[in-house]
Amino acid sequence: MKYHAVNNPNSFGHIELSSESYIEDVSVRHYAVPLAEVLSDAKHGDHTHFELIVCDIQTSDGFKGTGYSYTGGRGGHAIKCLIDYDLAGFIKGRECSDIQALWHDMNWHMHYVGRGGLVSFAISAIDIALWDIRCKRAEQPLYKYIGGESPMARCYAGGIDLNFDQDRLLQNVQGYLDRGFGAVKIKVGKEDYLEDVARVTAVRELIGANTQFMVDANYSMDVDQAIDFSKAVEANNLVWFEEPTVPDDYLGYARIAENTRIPLAMGENLHTPFEFGYAIAQSKLGFLQPDASNIGGITGWLHIADLAKQANLPICSHGMHELHVSLMAAQPHAGYLEVHSFPIDQYTSAPLKLSACGQAIAPELIGTGVDFDLEALRPHLTQ
Amino acid sequence: MKYHAVNNPNSFGHIELSSESYIEDVSVRHYAVPLAEVLSDAKHGDHTHFELIVCDIQTSDGFKGTGYSYTGGRGGHAIKCLIDYDLAGFIKGRECSDIQALWHDMNWHMHYVGRGGLVSFAISAIDIALWDIRCKRAEQPLYKYIGGESPMARCYAGGIDLNFDQDRLLQNVQGYLDRGFGAVKIKVGKEDYLEDVARVTAVRELIGANTQFMVDANYSMDVDQAIDFSKAVEANNLVWFEEPTVPDDYLGYARIAENTRIPLAMGENLHTPFEFGYAIAQSKLGFLQPDASNIGGITGWLHIADLAKQANLPICSHGMHELHVSLMAAQPHAGYLEVHSFPIDQYTSAPLKLSACGQAIAPELIGTGVDFDLEALRPHLTQ
Repeated sequence: MKYHAVNNPNSFGHIELSSESYIEDVSVRHYAVPLAEVLSDAKHGDHTHFELIVCDIQTSDGFKGTGYSYTGGRGGHAIKCLIDYDLAGFIKGRECSDIQALWHDMNWHMHYVGRGGLVSFAISAIDIALWDIRCKRAEQPLYKYIGGESPMARCYAGGIDLNFDQDRLLQNVQGYLDRGFGAVKIKVGKEDYLEDVARVTAVRELIGANTQFMVDANYSMDVDQAIDFSKAVEANNLVWFEEPTVPDDYLGYARIAENTRIPLAMGENLHTPFEFGYAIAQSKLGFLQPDASNIGGITGWLHIADLAKQANLPICSHGMHELHVSLMAAQPHAGYLEVHSFPIDQYTSAPLKLSACGQAIAPELIGTGVDFDLEALRPHLTQ
Repeated sequence: MKYHAVNNPNSFGHIELSSESYIEDVSVRHYAVPLAEVLSDAKHGDHTHFELIVCDIQTSDGFKGTGYSYTGGRGGHAIKCLIDYDLAGFIKGRECSDIQALWHDMNWHMHYVGRGGLVSFAISAIDIALWDIRCKRAEQPLYKYIGGESPMARCYAGGIDLNFDQDRLLQNVQGYLDRGFGAVKIKVGKEDYLEDVARVTAVRELIGANTQFMVDANYSMDVDQAIDFSKAVEANNLVWFEEPTVPDDYLGYARIAENTRIPLAMGENLHTPFEFGYAIAQSKLGFLQPDASNIGGITGWLHIADLAKQANLPICSHGMHELHVSLMAAQPHAGYLEVHSFPIDQYTSAPLKLSACGQAIAPELIGTGVDFDLEALRPHLTQ
């Protein structure tokens, strides 16, 4: 009997690839991009800037792909380090079209310090660059390459607004409506949950009955608190209640779900297919929200989308809408694309566009559709 | 009702501490230390060196503490980055004796890129330095400070020897017996499991019936393979079968446990109390093996030791025996200390000592007992 034929980290070394396009160079840059306004949620505190970690891969036959990850302001230097010191050398010389094998090999190579966590962010940036190359070689935009027929994706505006007073909150939500969004999300998790209830009620009154509405607690409540809050806002017809409690408490989610009519959502903090597997099996979720920047790139995100399909759950996305719009447009079981408050797309050549009916439109650019504006980013480059 | 009174990352900012000893400086160095011989296991491949990440903390009242983490050769630069860029500034100015609060606050501060993974390694190095200061202030060796009466800890020699041919394997095990060990562990996970069975049988023949004997597959088998292997070696009276399959497959462990008389062990790859909670609840383990270098230092390790006690499981340790010997000596439910093949203790002032009956002896040095020999390490310092 043969053991670990697939996953032995050494085994690929013995495979002779008749390569026509191998990875010739990997480089990575770190940016700290200030936000126009301080944004706050219940558990991450104040966001004053976001970090972008941008990875370029050059192939032996002249293709260049760009991938990236991002953070809320912490850990970005370490992500760059992982690529510089541990992953770049490991993938150089490998056939660049063999993305699935590279994904597995990178994960096993880093397993002792990985199993998700920060390593998944670094692998994401590399994986997205490899997909950029794959689409460029096929001369297709990402959404078409992965099987999408239409570039349209249902979406919502995701506010990071817990620090806003109620007037500023309503003004911010009105801004989303003015831009054409048909769905909005606000943060909850105030020290007194009755304040959350008042904010939810005020927003529902502002947006009317026909705008979709979600809330996000960033895991700031315990199970009983989340149940109390859910019951208090059920009349507001919410699409979902996101991250009521810590993502690790899979069975706690199930207890909340059993006690509210509001569907639960999570995913941004799950960084391996195993973690999503537990959430699907145990947490009684209504929506899954993987983020390609931290679930291992497009390979990881599509894998979770498959798991969602098998579980008959709608797939959604967290963050970096400039990339996710192409992934979401191609999913038959798409829920909602998050249009995030970190404006990464403002530093690209194709900021997100909405259709007249409030749908996001995936770019027709060849590749992933995310071309960074290096001049705009240059002031934010760190050493 | 008040939410998140304890865990809000912003809340401590409002507490006025009448500090008498605050964290004044945090510095960190990275070493790549070559091994005398290439060591190999089933899933990490060849180890040619290990990484040491050493963190020094200076207090306002003149104490200096040293903590550290280590890796099998990957991810160390990123751990240093996390301390340099994200954690050092965060903890400076905080009261250094408030270790439990610092542990929680560091974990929440890094949560978006954390929830275990690499962030736990960085927090470990800081936490151990804080415990070093705590013990120095109390003028006690660690094992006494945490309640130990005797410095003795039952231990075993943990070989990393899958690449050794059978002669070299037996020679290596004989070396352990010659040094006075009464318990030994070898790696398994060969491509043909019958070769593993032959090696186990040969080692048992060499060591005789009275030496304790463990095996470690480094998660290289699937559940069925692990069951087959277990059945084939059951006659060899093994203390445990370590990491038969991927640590994420908690229920897979239970299936293996239900099909073998050999107790199962794991822990080195679990980096949060949540992960240990799942393993305890679902995996039907016989032994828990946390590693203070990646479970969040001494604070994290002692927390897992408490969980083990509540679950009526013996607590063991993985790696860095020069520190764990003091932790293990103080546990009423101690299983076995691993004396690891990465000879970190050879770069300290007090390499591990064994008693005449093969027990490890915790050092009587004030502090954690791990004083690095900076001259010996200097050639291995990286930039």
